[in-house]
Amino acid sequence: MTPPTAQRQVLVRAHASGIPTPENFELVDAPMPVCPPGGVLLRVLLAAVDPAMRGWLNTAGNYMSVQPGSVMRAHGVGEVIATDCPDWRVGELVFGWLGWQRYAAVAPAELLWRIEPGIAPLPAWLNIFGLNGLAAWVGFTHLARPVAGRTALVTTAAGGVGAAVGQLAAAAGLRAVGITGGPEKVALATGEFGYATALDYREAGEGLAAQVRAACPEGIDVFFDNTAGQLADAVFPSLNIGARVIQCGTASIANWAPPPSGPRREREVLVKRLAWQGFVVFDHAALFPTALAELQALYKAGGLHSRDEVLEGLEAAPGAIQRLYSGANLGRVTIRP
Amino acid sequence: MTPPTAQRQVLVRAHASGIPTPENFELVDAPMPVCPPGGVLLRVLLAAVDPAMRGWLNTAGNYMSVQPGSVMRAHGVGEVIATDCPDWRVGELVFGWLGWQRYAAVAPAELLWRIEPGIAPLPAWLNIFGLNGLAAWVGFTHLARPVAGRTALVTTAAGGVGAAVGQLAAAAGLRAVGITGGPEKVALATGEFGYATALDYREAGEGLAAQVRAACPEGIDVFFDNTAGQLADAVFPSLNIGARVIQCGTASIANWAPPPSGPRREREVLVKRLAWQGFVVFDHAALFPTALAELQALYKAGGLHSRDEVLEGLEAAPGAIQRLYSGANLGRVTIRP
Repeated sequence: MTPPTAQRQVLVRAHASGIPTPENFELVDAPMPVCPPGGVLLRVLLAAVDPAMRGWLNTAGNYMSVQPGSVMRAHGVGEVIATDCPDWRVGELVFGWLGWQRYAAVAPAELLWRIEPGIAPLPAWLNIFGLNGLAAWVGFTHLARPVAGRTALVTTAAGGVGAAVGQLAAAAGLRAVGITGGPEKVALATGEFGYATALDYREAGEGLAAQVRAACPEGIDVFFDNTAGQLADAVFPSLNIGARVIQCGTASIANWAPPPSGPRREREVLVKRLAWQGFVVFDHAALFPTALAELQALYKAGGLHSRDEVLEGLEAAPGAIQRLYSGANLGRVTIRP
Repeated sequence: MTPPTAQRQVLVRAHASGIPTPENFELVDAPMPVCPPGGVLLRVLLAAVDPAMRGWLNTAGNYMSVQPGSVMRAHGVGEVIATDCPDWRVGELVFGWLGWQRYAAVAPAELLWRIEPGIAPLPAWLNIFGLNGLAAWVGFTHLARPVAGRTALVTTAAGGVGAAVGQLAAAAGLRAVGITGGPEKVALATGEFGYATALDYREAGEGLAAQVRAACPEGIDVFFDNTAGQLADAVFPSLNIGARVIQCGTASIANWAPPPSGPRREREVLVKRLAWQGFVVFDHAALFPTALAELQALYKAGGLHSRDEVLEGLEAAPGAIQRLYSGANLGRVTIRP
């Protein structure tokens, strides 16, 4: 395929109070950028679509935000096509903050690390070797301090992060139990993502807590939560004394202003001596080289699969976050702009 | 005062679903016990009344429970009056599980440590050198990893544990902000217990969250929570990124079966990267010698006061837990049986 020769970008049109829809974005054509002084010009080969983008677009306080009028912030894989920075050479492949656009003219600080395409196909660098793999490694391997032989329960088990957590858990000798939506994702979780068993919350309905209890006869020692809300409510009663709860996402609740009500947790936190820890992967940048080395070693050993779904064309981007939250995807979603 | 020569005990009559009242207990006279084989016979000089006793009497799952028909479980200070155990001699003073009774015939495992009466008056050994001081040290000094110059907020600031936490925080160079009920306790918190400022939640009513915000202009780095519920709801919005929440008690909520509703915390846990940790002081017995040494050093240096209220006679015991939860006490309550 001949690379496009014109710039095209997705701008943020307005903040979103819930899940962003195409109305929050604007697809525009723009002049072809030039290499900035001291910086790098890249062709964007793949751009990420992340659940976390919902938070970045919220008006409510978040750890990161994007402003209307700017190019939508996103990780991407790019190829250097011009450079005024001695650290980078034309032709190199890069993982970094490239945005939802065809060409990215960036300062070197936006470029996070080199990509070695011989190790894995390009989409894997936005998945298991990108934000998903790093979040799984930081939250599970680093923060949850997992112990072989114990049980880990993971929500959105077939999502980008959940898929990596299941495989890291299996590799660490834990019994991984997943919660996901629909029979295809249940099959993926157990077939590809390391889960010993997976529960379909849609089918379980009100019976989910009982299914969790039955699936975890020795209780749960690590709860890696990507959803919050009612799915988490079904898990808490099965937590063991001393369990760790890692809050990685809150996907099941679209709007936190004001926070919805739920069962108070203070007594469970106290009596079960829980350690409930939230994290944002970007805080742990110092660990990324270690994490990437471990993730790549596990991949080479056949213990880590990257399931990816590539959408063609930047015009797919504005609706892609909504699509992610609908659960329609089977694998990590990226855009070929 | 001549010691009583007859045994008298408070038995548990029935479990309690909320705060235990005199109806949950029974005062009985009993034969004078003898020293058990291999054990120790003690005269109980002081017996503890602890907020945690509510949990021990609950039918809902707890970390410790007492059964109807048994002597009410309680820490006490006792004097050895007969011994069949080479570790203990007649006349020694002991801190241990002595129960709500005049005489305790116990196995050596129930005796936790020797008391040196020269260091502090006896009631202090059930307060700052007992469960309160140990809970404050384990929860605050050990688990919350406090940093000088930061802000710590403590609920039930004038209670037994809160009084010790305020003084440990001040000694560690933090700015301690307390929440308590009524002007007398506010005065105690700031006058005796190390708090830079204290808020009266009864007077504040709906305005408590705004008062917390104003009292903590640099936000809160350690939240040592003894109450849960609406008081905690007023604190969470002022927590800083990376704050630690230590769940030591849930005093404001009388019944957890089923748990009452409150604002969901998952998003705050995630976005603020909170570390929310529950603890039960008995889990940390290995740290008690270190904790006691530090507490005694601080006491000798004048940085730790023990405010105690001694009720006369075992007949005061059955109503004492309820009295504690009513907030009528000014200081740690013990019973001279």
